[in-house]
Amino acid sequence: VTLPRIGVFDSGVGGLTVLKALAERQPAHYFYFGDTARLPYGTKSAETVARYAIGATRFLESRNIDLLVIACNTATALALPQIEAAASVPVVGVVEPGAAMASEVSQARRAIVIATEATVASHAYRDALARHGVQAFEKACPLFVPLVEEGWTEHAVTEQVAQIYLGEAIRQSSNLGEAATQNGDEADVMVLACTHYPLIAPLLRRIAPAQMKIVDSAESTARVVKAMMESVSREAAGEYEDLAPSKSSDHRSFRFFVTDSVEKFKKLATRFLGRQVDNVEHVDLGG
Amino acid sequence: VTLPRIGVFDSGVGGLTVLKALAERQPAHYFYFGDTARLPYGTKSAETVARYAIGATRFLESRNIDLLVIACNTATALALPQIEAAASVPVVGVVEPGAAMASEVSQARRAIVIATEATVASHAYRDALARHGVQAFEKACPLFVPLVEEGWTEHAVTEQVAQIYLGEAIRQSSNLGEAATQNGDEADVMVLACTHYPLIAPLLRRIAPAQMKIVDSAESTARVVKAMMESVSREAAGEYEDLAPSKSSDHRSFRFFVTDSVEKFKKLATRFLGRQVDNVEHVDLGG
Repeated sequence: VTLPRIGVFDSGVGGLTVLKALAERQPAHYFYFGDTARLPYGTKSAETVARYAIGATRFLESRNIDLLVIACNTATALALPQIEAAASVPVVGVVEPGAAMASEVSQARRAIVIATEATVASHAYRDALARHGVQAFEKACPLFVPLVEEGWTEHAVTEQVAQIYLGEAIRQSSNLGEAATQNGDEADVMVLACTHYPLIAPLLRRIAPAQMKIVDSAESTARVVKAMMESVSREAAGEYEDLAPSKSSDHRSFRFFVTDSVEKFKKLATRFLGRQVDNVEHVDLGG
Repeated sequence: VTLPRIGVFDSGVGGLTVLKALAERQPAHYFYFGDTARLPYGTKSAETVARYAIGATRFLESRNIDLLVIACNTATALALPQIEAAASVPVVGVVEPGAAMASEVSQARRAIVIATEATVASHAYRDALARHGVQAFEKACPLFVPLVEEGWTEHAVTEQVAQIYLGEAIRQSSNLGEAATQNGDEADVMVLACTHYPLIAPLLRRIAPAQMKIVDSAESTARVVKAMMESVSREAAGEYEDLAPSKSSDHRSFRFFVTDSVEKFKKLATRFLGRQVDNVEHVDLGG
């Protein structure tokens, strides 16, 4: 029996929350690619993002991965079909798993989606939630990423910013909800549609109304990958090692590849993963 | 007589504070180039930044400019010599003018420099200030740019963040100053070494100690350009229109060129310049 080999791709460090959620559920050899020299993807055209993502896909496939996780909201929103067409392995993005889980837990069929400006502008979550019959209210929270990268995940400033953003999102969803349907039901689920946000999930939990469920697209994606691997494992009948949850580090290995500074990545990655990160290699994909 | 033609280059909108300071002093036709599709420059290698900056230089020179202002701390810090070598017109960066003005006003010969992480890491201001005999204490303030771009220039959150950053910078400069010289003199000047920071200058003024002078590298750069144009004008004896300060908008024209979304630039530019910005054109320099 062998462990599956899973590639995880993001423009930077945010996808590490997806990697962390994956590693907690799924024994595997993990290959993480952070395209840190070319971030942020959010301001770039769909063509450029697709080109970069396909470069990352080729690189990770050269590591003989069995499955590719696009742990980046922008790349998923703008280029998932192109990546799937270019890849020779199954591809999982972060948008659909988050939308599916929000639909699963929402009684009101209304969700607040908090994300970066680029993800909101793409309306990828609104469209995915609509396919599940859930109305979405999207709110851009551009200060959350720099606050997380500053390490202020439990800071009074972050709490104040979160109160402002969540207050605006809830007011907006109530107003739009009433206008659209003459029905006062409020959103009962909030989707963390940015891979940085799980680091402030405890803070958001304290601020959000008690009845509002919080769906983390990193967790949702890990759940989907786990299910896929179990199905592959059943088909392959023993090709992969027993996939029952295991906390043994023997059943997980990690390699990290970045296109910019290894040192900066190590520092942030240690914070994101909650464990020391050392085996980071620099790669140059050009462009 | 004709008006001078001045090119102003930045990776995004920050250089608009330099453009604003220039336009208040210097009648001219202004051509602003914001490389918004390829920002931020701060995470990129010196080679890449030089290549991008030289592309912008060629573009602005095709508009027959007489002078080029590099209104970008990263491009100045990493690539000014390469830009000067590639340009056929005089080039002014933002670092040296800011350092010169700080030296002019500092009695203590100690300055606090607040900037982005990339500018701090380059130590461009520390080196420039050292050439003027001023010891620099550099402090990265990574939340200021997103706070300014969010429009929170007079917000309680920004005030709280500024109190934290400035408190750390002042403590650090006192400690290092004592260790280095056994002399308790504190820094008496603070350099705003990021082109976004002039928008929070009033807030910083309220928080900084009363005796600390604030030097804005946008203002300093505009002063240098004004002096250069006066000297050119004297040499050219009337080639340019009378350059005495004038508030008449007849003596200034503006054209804006950006490599990413025109709409997003218009919105931010209107805030930065304090006037409606409409004539923005999209250009594609490739890469």
